[in-house]
Amino acid sequence: MIRGDLLYEGKAKKLYRTDDPNVLWVEYKDDATAFNGEKKAQLAGKGEMNNRIAAFFFRYLRENGVDNHFLQEVSPTEQWVRKVTIIPLEVVVRNRAAGSMAKRLGLEEGRMLPRPIVEFYYKNDELKDPLITEDHIDVLGLATVDQREEMKRIALQVNDLLGKKMQELGVTLVDFKLEFGIDPDGRLILADEISPDTCRFWDVKTGKVLDKDRFRRDLGNVVEAYREIWNRLEGTTP
Amino acid sequence: MIRGDLLYEGKAKKLYRTDDPNVLWVEYKDDATAFNGEKKAQLAGKGEMNNRIAAFFFRYLRENGVDNHFLQEVSPTEQWVRKVTIIPLEVVVRNRAAGSMAKRLGLEEGRMLPRPIVEFYYKNDELKDPLITEDHIDVLGLATVDQREEMKRIALQVNDLLGKKMQELGVTLVDFKLEFGIDPDGRLILADEISPDTCRFWDVKTGKVLDKDRFRRDLGNVVEAYREIWNRLEGTTP
Repeated sequence: MIRGDLLYEGKAKKLYRTDDPNVLWVEYKDDATAFNGEKKAQLAGKGEMNNRIAAFFFRYLRENGVDNHFLQEVSPTEQWVRKVTIIPLEVVVRNRAAGSMAKRLGLEEGRMLPRPIVEFYYKNDELKDPLITEDHIDVLGLATVDQREEMKRIALQVNDLLGKKMQELGVTLVDFKLEFGIDPDGRLILADEISPDTCRFWDVKTGKVLDKDRFRRDLGNVVEAYREIWNRLEGTTP
Repeated sequence: MIRGDLLYEGKAKKLYRTDDPNVLWVEYKDDATAFNGEKKAQLAGKGEMNNRIAAFFFRYLRENGVDNHFLQEVSPTEQWVRKVTIIPLEVVVRNRAAGSMAKRLGLEEGRMLPRPIVEFYYKNDELKDPLITEDHIDVLGLATVDQREEMKRIALQVNDLLGKKMQELGVTLVDFKLEFGIDPDGRLILADEISPDTCRFWDVKTGKVLDKDRFRRDLGNVVEAYREIWNRLEGTTP
């Protein structure tokens, strides 16, 4: 496989074409950004941790019946993925109130929800990725009703699988964000990344934050926390 | 009926007890507020217009099968209503993008939606009445699933009825906000008010704004616009 032109540079990843039109070459960067790009930093080693952790989760999910765009790791910071057209929605699953949901609803950070819930945010930097309703998705034409229901179903299935795995490793899965794409055959598949950049992970015993909130909230030792997640995952079979 | 103690003073209305525990005495005030109370004014005659218009709409809706809290007008600015426990939700129906929805989704003001949609906002001044999802309503315990679905059904029925009436009068119903309450028998009923304070009305021919946006956007002649709505309604039978 040959790495071709840069197709897209995001906040945390670069996407390149390859000589196979169905395959993209993803490079995880060390850049960290938060608050819609207002806060920025370079964190050496973050790209490697996220590449390894995302690859692990995608393999684990596929082995447990959740198809996704991951193909294979090709370097410590790079992986090949199937090319899909990303649906401009952030699909968030929450087990506990935290972050923007805690703020929006006036709930204390960490409050257990009676059941996991799925939220949709419109991926639009200019609009600052607003929360939107299912009707908004429909009237904006961002996804069909079937696609929306399928995203919710898969998101809750991912929550069950990731939650179980992390629990085994002494980590609470507080919430996470997924993105989906449509493949050339029109099938909806899980895409983007799953990593401490896109999940909230808390140590079960100590409550220690092991995710991007360390960066958002200036808690320090960001990459060390990501490495702790990786070390726990690495010791298990997916 | 005797007017008793002040039970609650809102931004635009005062609610008093009466000697009947099932009846409240509502006084529509001339106060105008916007942007979560940041902008304030006194607009002489607004209370009267809103009292008359709300009474008209509530009678019209009842005659067309939508039960509600209205009992009768008792003065130009006062009406009796059934006492209900208000559900802390603003139920918004939109036929066109405007206001906060246009801003949230990046749509131009006035853009026709492919179908009317219902949104829920959490009535909470401290949180600035945020948009919330149906799952949020559920996990916060603000309404049961049945109550939520009933509110949506009634809201769309009100939209059909109000839209038809206003169209006859040369007015476009852009959007409006409803509130619901639970009566002593546990029944969900339409409550609060329906007026140019809670609806967006545009003249069909000229596009002239005939609602509270005149106040929000400093367009002037606020009460004159409310009076124009009242004059058109008064000439019809409900």
